[in-house]
Amino acid sequence: LSSPALDERTGAKVFLKPEMLQRTGSFKFRGAFNKLSSIPIGSRGGGVVAFSSGNHAQGVAHAAQILNMQATIVMPADAPLSKRQRTKAFGAEVVLYDRDREDREAIARDIAGKRGATLVRPYDDPFVIAGQGTVGREIAEDMAALGITPDIVVAPASGGGLIAGVATAIKARYPKAMVMSGEPEGFDDHARSLRAGKREPHHAEGRTICDALMATIPGEITFAINSRLLTQGITASDAEVGTAVAFAFRELKLVVEPGGAVGLAALLAGRIDARGKNVVIVLSGGNVDADLYARLIN
Amino acid sequence: LSSPALDERTGAKVFLKPEMLQRTGSFKFRGAFNKLSSIPIGSRGGGVVAFSSGNHAQGVAHAAQILNMQATIVMPADAPLSKRQRTKAFGAEVVLYDRDREDREAIARDIAGKRGATLVRPYDDPFVIAGQGTVGREIAEDMAALGITPDIVVAPASGGGLIAGVATAIKARYPKAMVMSGEPEGFDDHARSLRAGKREPHHAEGRTICDALMATIPGEITFAINSRLLTQGITASDAEVGTAVAFAFRELKLVVEPGGAVGLAALLAGRIDARGKNVVIVLSGGNVDADLYARLIN
Repeated sequence: LSSPALDERTGAKVFLKPEMLQRTGSFKFRGAFNKLSSIPIGSRGGGVVAFSSGNHAQGVAHAAQILNMQATIVMPADAPLSKRQRTKAFGAEVVLYDRDREDREAIARDIAGKRGATLVRPYDDPFVIAGQGTVGREIAEDMAALGITPDIVVAPASGGGLIAGVATAIKARYPKAMVMSGEPEGFDDHARSLRAGKREPHHAEGRTICDALMATIPGEITFAINSRLLTQGITASDAEVGTAVAFAFRELKLVVEPGGAVGLAALLAGRIDARGKNVVIVLSGGNVDADLYARLIN
Repeated sequence: LSSPALDERTGAKVFLKPEMLQRTGSFKFRGAFNKLSSIPIGSRGGGVVAFSSGNHAQGVAHAAQILNMQATIVMPADAPLSKRQRTKAFGAEVVLYDRDREDREAIARDIAGKRGATLVRPYDDPFVIAGQGTVGREIAEDMAALGITPDIVVAPASGGGLIAGVATAIKARYPKAMVMSGEPEGFDDHARSLRAGKREPHHAEGRTICDALMATIPGEITFAINSRLLTQGITASDAEVGTAVAFAFRELKLVVEPGGAVGLAALLAGRIDARGKNVVIVLSGGNVDADLYARLIN
């Protein structure tokens, strides 16, 4: 999608990949469906288990529903209510845990062991990364169809699965394109790790409105890809993200969740040298609670 | 656009035409651009004039901007500041009038006479109707590409320009499709007129949250088309429209203004016999104030 208002404001030719329009309201369905499809028919009886604060949960739950598999999702008790309800609506069993006192990976592994379920990791899995990468493949195909060469491609990063898949697809077709990860200010483990040349955690304490982008450190598999393909990591403050969510409401008429808007936020805040360039921004999801959304657009 | 959640809820195969993604945030740009393009080059010096408090104003202003013509928009003095500002941002001159004491048509005609400007009517003009009809043409082309025959097509109606253009395009390709106008309960002048076989005003007093759909009586040219091509008019209450706006936020991730959601509202409320059918709903715009939107989604 493009927007004359956005082009005028940024001086760039901007193309938006609207992943809020994807099944389950975010890109996460892509990786989940690809992963679940890779499980041999004979191994599907035990179902799948995943840990996620939101969008991955819905992606796995819906993919399991389509493939007639049982899904158990381990979610933090403070996850947005909308994400919990929507996960249940896809037929998954939701197990809540205490974010401060319990280890979600251990809980998920325990369930996997007892039931013979396949653990579906949110990002550090080649099938998941390849699935998210279809976002990048579609961007490359759409840009090729338009005859436009992208100069800059930005996608949000938490564990780094989306950006790793996108970068793989984009760089295969457009080797000179600069691919950048977007993160909330403070939660900048990708930006730090890319500068350091090795996986580094972020140093943020507390929270960000980008609830989907709070992973502490890049994944091992994802960083092996991202360290090779990404130009840099960029960040945006929560205030800039709020401005971007409101801009998307007012000018684009798209519902973007805070974590999904971090690339747009960096662009609107002038944190990307975009003037005169062809810029692709992945808006990665739109699952946001109504009360937070109402606050941001006002 | 389609939505598994919407299909599951309605038992239909639903296709949405998302006109909030159009330039200026509604379909109105289409008719305005077609009308302005039809003005001979030699007659463009006097510019254009239109009266509107909302989407038509922005459509005309933006079309004039693109075609390097001067636009004057006659708006009520109590129109929301945001709408005045957006119209001005497209380079139009805004002339305010007193809704209770002045006649906007007379003011617009006066300006047209003095300046040699072309009056751009909001619906009762063949070029405007043809422009809005590209919505229907695109629907017909998209459905043909999918190999799916639409059974029911619904679009909102105020003066009836959009639905007249849509019906013309749809019935040309799919003569058996049932095309229906959508209106807010009470403001049902199309539904009444279709039943009566002649133009009838609605009997509503007061207001509806569908501020874009408050015309009192169908247009003459539009009704000549609609009386021939429409199956019936359907309605939805303000409460049902609010539910539809919230559904579009939560499940579709699209910002729909109340007037743009009236077809979706009727569908969700069970007012259309949709089960097992291929149903196309035009979501005609997304220009809604943040405070009203916040109220509706909560």
